Amino acid sequence: MPEVVFPLDSTKSFTDQRIVGHNRWHPDIPAQVHVKPGDSFRVHCREWFDGAIHNDDSADDILNAPLNGVHVLSGPIAVEGAQPGDLLIVDILDVGPIPQEDSGPLAGQGWGYTGVFATSNGGGFLTEQFPDAYKVIWDFQGGVATSRHVPGVSFTGIVHPGLMGTAPSADLLATWNSREGALIATDPNRVPPLALPPQPDSAILGSLSGADFERAAAEAARTAPPRENGGNQDIKNLTRGTRVFYPVFVDGAKLSMGDLHFSQGDGEITFCGAIEMGGFMDLHVDVIKGGMQTYGVTENAIFMPGRTDPQYSEWLAFSGTSVTLGGEQRYLDSHLSYQRACLHAIDYLTQFGYSAIQAYMILGAAPIEGRLSGVVDIPNSCSTVYIPTEIFDFDVRPGKNGPHQVDPGQGVPRSAG
Amino acid sequence: MPEVVFPLDSTKSFTDQRIVGHNRWHPDIPAQVHVKPGDSFRVHCREWFDGAIHNDDSADDILNAPLNGVHVLSGPIAVEGAQPGDLLIVDILDVGPIPQEDSGPLAGQGWGYTGVFATSNGGGFLTEQFPDAYKVIWDFQGGVATSRHVPGVSFTGIVHPGLMGTAPSADLLATWNSREGALIATDPNRVPPLALPPQPDSAILGSLSGADFERAAAEAARTAPPRENGGNQDIKNLTRGTRVFYPVFVDGAKLSMGDLHFSQGDGEITFCGAIEMGGFMDLHVDVIKGGMQTYGVTENAIFMPGRTDPQYSEWLAFSGTSVTLGGEQRYLDSHLSYQRACLHAIDYLTQFGYSAIQAYMILGAAPIEGRLSGVVDIPNSCSTVYIPTEIFDFDVRPGKNGPHQVDPGQGVPRSAG
Amino acid sequence: MPEVVFPLDSTKSFTDQRIVGHNRWHPDIPAQVHVKPGDSFRVHCREWFDGAIHNDDSADDILNAPLNGVHVLSGPIAVEGAQPGDLLIVDILDVGPIPQEDSGPLAGQGWGYTGVFATSNGGGFLTEQFPDAYKVIWDFQGGVATSRHVPGVSFTGIVHPGLMGTAPSADLLATWNSREGALIATDPNRVPPLALPPQPDSAILGSLSGADFERAAAEAARTAPPRENGGNQDIKNLTRGTRVFYPVFVDGAKLSMGDLHFSQGDGEITFCGAIEMGGFMDLHVDVIKGGMQTYGVTENAIFMPGRTDPQYSEWLAFSGTSVTLGGEQRYLDSHLSYQRACLHAIDYLTQFGYSAIQAYMILGAAPIEGRLSGVVDIPNSCSTVYIPTEIFDFDVRPGKNGPHQVDPGQGVPRSAG
Amino acid sequence: MPEVVFPLDSTKSFTDQRIVGHNRWHPDIPAQVHVKPGDSFRVHCREWFDGAIHNDDSADDILNAPLNGVHVLSGPIAVEGAQPGDLLIVDILDVGPIPQEDSGPLAGQGWGYTGVFATSNGGGFLTEQFPDAYKVIWDFQGGVATSRHVPGVSFTGIVHPGLMGTAPSADLLATWNSREGALIATDPNRVPPLALPPQPDSAILGSLSGADFERAAAEAARTAPPRENGGNQDIKNLTRGTRVFYPVFVDGAKLSMGDLHFSQGDGEITFCGAIEMGGFMDLHVDVIKGGMQTYGVTENAIFMPGRTDPQYSEWLAFSGTSVTLGGEQRYLDSHLSYQRACLHAIDYLTQFGYSAIQAYMILGAAPIEGRLSGVVDIPNSCSTVYIPTEIFDFDVRPGKNGPHQVDPGQGVPRSAG
Repeated sequence: MPEVVFPLDSTKSFTDQRIVGHNRWHPDIPAQVHVKPGDSFRVHCREWFDGAIHNDDSADDILNAPLNGVHVLSGPIAVEGAQPGDLLIVDILDVGPIPQEDSGPLAGQGWGYTGVFATSNGGGFLTEQFPDAYKVIWDFQGGVATSRHVPGVSFTGIVHPGLMGTAPSADLLATWNSREGALIATDPNRVPPLALPPQPDSAILGSLSGADFERAAAEAARTAPPRENGGNQDIKNLTRGTRVFYPVFVDGAKLSMGDLHFSQGDGEITFCGAIEMGGFMDLHVDVIKGGMQTYGVTENAIFMPGRTDPQYSEWLAFSGTSVTLGGEQRYLDSHLSYQRACLHAIDYLTQFGYSAIQAYMILGAAPIEGRLSGVVDIPNSCSTVYIPTEIFDFDVRPGKNGPHQVDPGQGVPRSAG
Repeated sequence: MPEVVFPLDSTKSFTDQRIVGHNRWHPDIPAQVHVKPGDSFRVHCREWFDGAIHNDDSADDILNAPLNGVHVLSGPIAVEGAQPGDLLIVDILDVGPIPQEDSGPLAGQGWGYTGVFATSNGGGFLTEQFPDAYKVIWDFQGGVATSRHVPGVSFTGIVHPGLMGTAPSADLLATWNSREGALIATDPNRVPPLALPPQPDSAILGSLSGADFERAAAEAARTAPPRENGGNQDIKNLTRGTRVFYPVFVDGAKLSMGDLHFSQGDGEITFCGAIEMGGFMDLHVDVIKGGMQTYGVTENAIFMPGRTDPQYSEWLAFSGTSVTLGGEQRYLDSHLSYQRACLHAIDYLTQFGYSAIQAYMILGAAPIEGRLSGVVDIPNSCSTVYIPTEIFDFDVRPGKNGPHQVDPGQGVPRSAG
Repeated sequence: MPEVVFPLDSTKSFTDQRIVGHNRWHPDIPAQVHVKPGDSFRVHCREWFDGAIHNDDSADDILNAPLNGVHVLSGPIAVEGAQPGDLLIVDILDVGPIPQEDSGPLAGQGWGYTGVFATSNGGGFLTEQFPDAYKVIWDFQGGVATSRHVPGVSFTGIVHPGLMGTAPSADLLATWNSREGALIATDPNRVPPLALPPQPDSAILGSLSGADFERAAAEAARTAPPRENGGNQDIKNLTRGTRVFYPVFVDGAKLSMGDLHFSQGDGEITFCGAIEMGGFMDLHVDVIKGGMQTYGVTENAIFMPGRTDPQYSEWLAFSGTSVTLGGEQRYLDSHLSYQRACLHAIDYLTQFGYSAIQAYMILGAAPIEGRLSGVVDIPNSCSTVYIPTEIFDFDVRPGKNGPHQVDPGQGVPRSAG
Repeated sequence: MPEVVFPLDSTKSFTDQRIVGHNRWHPDIPAQVHVKPGDSFRVHCREWFDGAIHNDDSADDILNAPLNGVHVLSGPIAVEGAQPGDLLIVDILDVGPIPQEDSGPLAGQGWGYTGVFATSNGGGFLTEQFPDAYKVIWDFQGGVATSRHVPGVSFTGIVHPGLMGTAPSADLLATWNSREGALIATDPNRVPPLALPPQPDSAILGSLSGADFERAAAEAARTAPPRENGGNQDIKNLTRGTRVFYPVFVDGAKLSMGDLHFSQGDGEITFCGAIEMGGFMDLHVDVIKGGMQTYGVTENAIFMPGRTDPQYSEWLAFSGTSVTLGGEQRYLDSHLSYQRACLHAIDYLTQFGYSAIQAYMILGAAPIEGRLSGVVDIPNSCSTVYIPTEIFDFDVRPGKNGPHQVDPGQGVPRSAG
């Protein structure tokens, strides 16, 4: 096992750990760990809500989730010699749930959860259809997830970090705050909001304290969106064996990571989202000096996925176009067409006895593929969503005998938003 | 070989064929061909511009392409007993370039083309960056495409129909015209336009003539966008072996198809787009009575892709977020984030000696994957584009030695828009 | 379509064609066709028994099959400039059943057959268990095979030539005759025989006639075994897109091919075997001068399989060791261990209602994988056979509810040997 | 983490552990561990030579390896309620190198080894060509293996147990001893031997002692060969996620396992063989009562491989037939034809600068595929070996420019046998 450079104790909260990480992006958060190019090391990662979500049959914890506190990240990790303009090579040697702990109260201890936020808390991709808070617990065994809340389905985990990235420079941070602030200003009272401004409440900035903390907390960026530094990309294919190339914006690169997922469908459509868990990452780092210019990678990570993603060979696919449910024609809106494709998939699965929220949860957590199939055929973009048929323990294909009927069981816990 | 129920002669134009197809959607276009559930049959398909694009080194034909005339479709084909509310099963038994003809002036005779329209003609996904007309010729051999205009790259074709679908009912057609008209009305003089209204000029409606033709031509829907009936979905995975389930809106279903592609990347980002060709489809049809309600498929096709898509196992991937090139923050715009991911890929490939338009053409024609990776992390969606590294005849991965330099050769023909 | 350099008329027998091929290996068989490095061309191929096997429900034709007449091969094709010591590159641009003919009396016209020979005629891999003649007819549709004789199973074809190779030199031919004669001499009256000596009866040697024919027919090698020149390798992975490198032993290489298979499991265990058919191959050839020495390829083809083999992702596998059914321990006999693995698979499938011969036929024709898993663990080698579960239309996995029962239908035609 | 029911301390020898396993098969070895159907648990496994092989540059330890002491196995594990006639379901939840230990003197602590035995010690698959002892050390990082002894190659591990199985009944053991003894008797002084008889020297039989030990040691079966109980099958595809079904021959089934491999090519052709290591397995067990008869599985395991085997999509393949290097024709000898295919692959790789033993080691350790391609074409069987081209860091395909030249570096340690 590589040396654990960022350890976590599952029994303690994020801020009570020996090394305290952070939940905002800011160049001034001091590096907690120092490594060299060529080093391999292990990092523990806390589940993104720091243990606030429980392995039970109520969605109240999702309804009341401490949104200002996310994402609790491990880092920053300084890589010796990395300078602005370099590309930081990060090899994901391994990633998984909390090692040696397969039962316990913390997500990652043999289980994880998928949630849907109430609209008042930010909602999700299909918040108009699912305005309340919902939660599903998934059990892990043998790299496979199953759930008492969604019977009849099991799938091999596609384990990955939802969030990893380098620290922004001060300039880049200012750019973020400026452009996101401008967006918010177009509709400042919107529910859910258009974006999340800096929020000193619940900010954790590693070892920063006092005035330094106050200043940084007031301007540090929230971690929800992916940005030029990578960040919360929620790319399900950053699995074991993946090599990522991050732009470097500050000395030492200041790499951080967290928000581990046991599995996720493309889009993480349920928002809270994927199968959330704590766990570990084994990483190897290296540096391509001046690589940003050499390879034209000035922003956003590029990557080469690993070779051991779960293999499925039979898919049932749904398509959608950029027409709203209400019948309004939108112009090449791939976001909308993906929503419509997902809704079509949900409509289909409910014919087999699932509740709509069960179907939604499957799409959020299973390794479905979401593709931008057509983006130019005005005015309709076409998005498609592919569900592996082999994840169901019954025949999910259309046929002349009509759909098999699943016993939906106890269903998905819900808390009115 | 299944019986050819819709034959085409490569030496004659679309309207000079024995059976004349159509290039608009309208319920009143008479069925040209009648088949029964359980039948297998062959359909010839004309390339979408009916031969107007030539195998040469000029993009003038793309600049002056007869846009009002597209897509020249084969059909309608009536399936006996199919009624509104049924699901029409269409098995793609085979699909390919023009059989027995591997040289000649018609795309599909051993070659195909990828084009980019000038902005004044509708542009493409990246029209701001590529405002002129461009064309690339691809040669087919052994199921593999190569191009004198884009050296250093070859890939196995992922052959599919860009367009297939059933006829709309009169009500559905009215809905289309209404909602698309409303969109156009929001900015009627936009270049490129938001959508394309019915256009009697160049309309071809099969055997309709006289007053029936005039009436139908005035209201028939253009074929560019995908809609509830399937249509121009440009789904690259509708390859040989695929089973598609189409909603039926009129008696006999009235299936039509065309716009064959030798290969395409997700999104068909170059618009004209994919590797365009004429060719053939072998189809088998069947009907699930009442299947729309039984399976909850009230609109948009669902499908099960075939098992013989080309296999690649090493990918280089690029990510993008919903921030414009000008730095403006947009709200969860997956269309924009896919544009940015594609632009990142283009920036990268140009470091290897390709011109930007060559890189763009690779993304349009090669079997790249475009995924909606994150759609909920406000305000940034995250889209990703995956390029198989094995399509290049050099090492395209980032490394410490810097990028290999390709000889870009004569490059991509361009005609100023 | 590439030029047809070796045409066949489905209505005529092999010897009545315009160009007559051959069914023996001999360096003096004149080239019938001349091509150049870089050329692409089409070759028609006759099914290996030249039409003697019929689409009916009797195995009499298999029992009485004209064994001396096989394999009817297309060629030889001389490649300009190819000389002994070169490597001949052969790209399989395409391969398939008889084009444009999907019904008719000739295998390849929409159907094919799998046979098992009676022991007296050579038997097969499991001739002790299946001593008679058996036949299964498979229907092709959409690249998928199904059979009235084996219900409940369908699979995507893995189309390939069973036989392709270059002509032997006179010296190499003498070597073959010498070593095979020595083997036969060890047990000359064995049934089935150990090997097949030259057999002038039914020999077809292209345009050779008179004394030249007599001399060559007396020494020409039978085509059953694969040898240094490639030949009847029965490698199921020589599918479309494959590049093969053959050693060149005579001027012009003299390439020949035939014995097309719509599908086959590893080993072609039923002997007659695979799904036999006539059809076509589109080929592209080139030459690596001196390549045999440069690459150390002095005998036996090397190859790179195509990228579009059918994809399956769930397999049920059986293992066997080198102990005979009678309980005798053999020393590292991978042939025997594969027999035992296949017998285990057959035992398993019969629990689902199949007859043993139906199960045997599935193993012969479906794209099963046969692997040499352990070859050193004295005294037992371990071979394994992998069956894709997705080819069955029922759940073929072991479970607590016991095996599903298939209706075996009319079963497999049999003729007592 | 599942409960560790069979723990090992890396710093102690096999016989000094708290629970002592066994290295022979015998029904009377007492179960060391008791589990129930439905249980999940972790087992530590010692590398098969119990630490006798070192991470250095000498092959002396391979030359002098303690052959009588293998394989040191973890178990037996009794499964409550399992009875003769049942099928034991074993799910491989996880398998890997020694957890939390990535450096140290024991194989499995971040490294492993591949060895070739001297002929006097049993040799290997190609012992005529490689009569001495050889050793290669592989380093593990990120699930990928590389070696200072074989430059230019790296590959993703296909981690699996070489050996797992249930205990034989007394009758079955007697059968083994009888048939293997009969084989040995045919050539009792052969070097290497035909099989290994019971050998009390170095026998370890768990908690057995005294007269019980003496009696059992005299008749207990060696663990080298796979047999009806599974055992040393060396199936490279028993990776994470695999479900195996073992016949049960004694009450409690008495499951044992060991001989973990980080990677291996089909056949484990180098004998010592694969990349050997210690490590762990997480297992889940269940029972199908009476399953042996219900499913016709009376001997040898059946299994369903996991979904996360490493994916490669471009292969270079070599074929061989059953003719000896000396030119003798053998009858349908798939063992020989696989040897010849492997030798062809070695000949090829040596043209790129590798020594023959380096090439041999690649075939033994990398995830190559070995297939029984043709087993009926008398007198030649055809075997094929497929090497993924992507494991080389140079272009290994044949071309017109001739082979790239690798710097072979220090090469493979050798000790004369």
